[in-house]
Amino acid sequence: MSAHIIDGKATANELLDEVAAGTSEFTSTAGRKPCLATVLVGDDPASHTYVKMKRNRSAKVGMESRYVQLPGTTTTDELVAEITGLSADPTVDGILLQHPVPAHVDERAAFEAIDPSKDVDGVTMHSFAAMAFGEPGFHSCTPGGIMRLIDAYDIPVAGAHAVVVGRSPILGKPVGMLLLARDATVTYCHSKTADLAAQVAEADIVVAAVGRPELIRGEWIKPGAAVLDAGYNPGNIGDVEYATAAERAGLITPVPGGVGPMTIAVLLEQTLTSARSRG
Amino acid sequence: MSAHIIDGKATANELLDEVAAGTSEFTSTAGRKPCLATVLVGDDPASHTYVKMKRNRSAKVGMESRYVQLPGTTTTDELVAEITGLSADPTVDGILLQHPVPAHVDERAAFEAIDPSKDVDGVTMHSFAAMAFGEPGFHSCTPGGIMRLIDAYDIPVAGAHAVVVGRSPILGKPVGMLLLARDATVTYCHSKTADLAAQVAEADIVVAAVGRPELIRGEWIKPGAAVLDAGYNPGNIGDVEYATAAERAGLITPVPGGVGPMTIAVLLEQTLTSARSRG
Repeated sequence: MSAHIIDGKATANELLDEVAAGTSEFTSTAGRKPCLATVLVGDDPASHTYVKMKRNRSAKVGMESRYVQLPGTTTTDELVAEITGLSADPTVDGILLQHPVPAHVDERAAFEAIDPSKDVDGVTMHSFAAMAFGEPGFHSCTPGGIMRLIDAYDIPVAGAHAVVVGRSPILGKPVGMLLLARDATVTYCHSKTADLAAQVAEADIVVAAVGRPELIRGEWIKPGAAVLDAGYNPGNIGDVEYATAAERAGLITPVPGGVGPMTIAVLLEQTLTSARSRG
Repeated sequence: MSAHIIDGKATANELLDEVAAGTSEFTSTAGRKPCLATVLVGDDPASHTYVKMKRNRSAKVGMESRYVQLPGTTTTDELVAEITGLSADPTVDGILLQHPVPAHVDERAAFEAIDPSKDVDGVTMHSFAAMAFGEPGFHSCTPGGIMRLIDAYDIPVAGAHAVVVGRSPILGKPVGMLLLARDATVTYCHSKTADLAAQVAEADIVVAAVGRPELIRGEWIKPGAAVLDAGYNPGNIGDVEYATAAERAGLITPVPGGVGPMTIAVLLEQTLTSARSRG
């Protein structure tokens, strides 16, 4: 058996086309473009690249992007003040704080300065609880992207057993809550899990969100399972041992070109949603 | 084999004794008693009884209780205004909205009017995310009570497989997050779970939080597992089939006298904590 490969790039491009069309319509109706503010602290090269990608994509779908670059010496108070200003600014629809921030900054405090109605990256405590409780709010972008892939490929969720490997506040924890809200039985695994192989072997849906190259072995995958790999490790290696997993899975995301492209698409989709809600 | 019985009443009484001593000390230092405001909408007899119990217990540990009784016809706006007033009132340390509220009221909106720093019942979205992320905040009282029983009886959590049956916003979901934050592997089961028996059979820790009498059969319990039953169904029946489960479990909570008594104790402990933080 060989898995059907989930084409995240194609699904992301479809979503981006919809967002571009919606943005064009919004712009002509509202007389302004949706605006995403991106905030970068310090000069980590990878973060620079990510922010640049996000800004380019914003422009490509017709959005305005506001770029706030702060020195690596920025304090928590200064960063919170900056983000609070963007939260209050009526010309800003969405706020993205590129993370990780430098170690001396209280990242949680900075995230919480984002008004939930502009939290298009889905990083606030409010957005997390909204995902868990099925209340209105924005999704964390990668979890939101995973759910959109699941729907694009008609993967059954209700009653399925989903195993999420990883428990970070913006990836593992929220994707588990989104799956639970859709009636999956959800197991959270992590570095302290006693027998990861046995847990993964039970899964109809595996979400890998741990950031350790090929931690999840192909032979663990239940035949026919859907495998969504949000890992992106140096050398374009995912968290799943792809080649052997693809022999057993029913559906699988490659790395790159699987989950990755969805993240920016969801970010921009949510920025448009925010703009529409503000008019 | 026969399980060791977890004496929730004794553990709760120890905690209440500590809270009473702390309340006495706080009162003499601060020159005022900690104050818990309880809000009841309508005249459901069971809710009346619960609120009365909570007020009596507050008095017994030396706290002041403020009682706000509103007619069953109260609108969401009126209830939100009342709770917003209590949130702003410097003489109030904790706010408890007795739930369920009448069906025409937006319960979530009412909960969210509680300032998180006074959310001693742990019902707000902020408190939920704080439990999930390990941020400072109050626990939902029954989940907090379950964690205190687990600690009182030295039940190992890190690396254990915990199965939570139920996923309500103030019971199942938060107790799973508290267990995950303590490094358990956590599985959420619910009414759509395909094979509940098989899931429960894997659990080192079973938390029953579903409100269906004896849904969890004794024969499903893994020998030696810890069973915490937060169910409280008519006729003093838990969610776990107690007699047969007690033959297999290592530790088990009875109903009543297990998880139940812990809830009020945690509520009052958190009210004292809130009062201390305000001075």
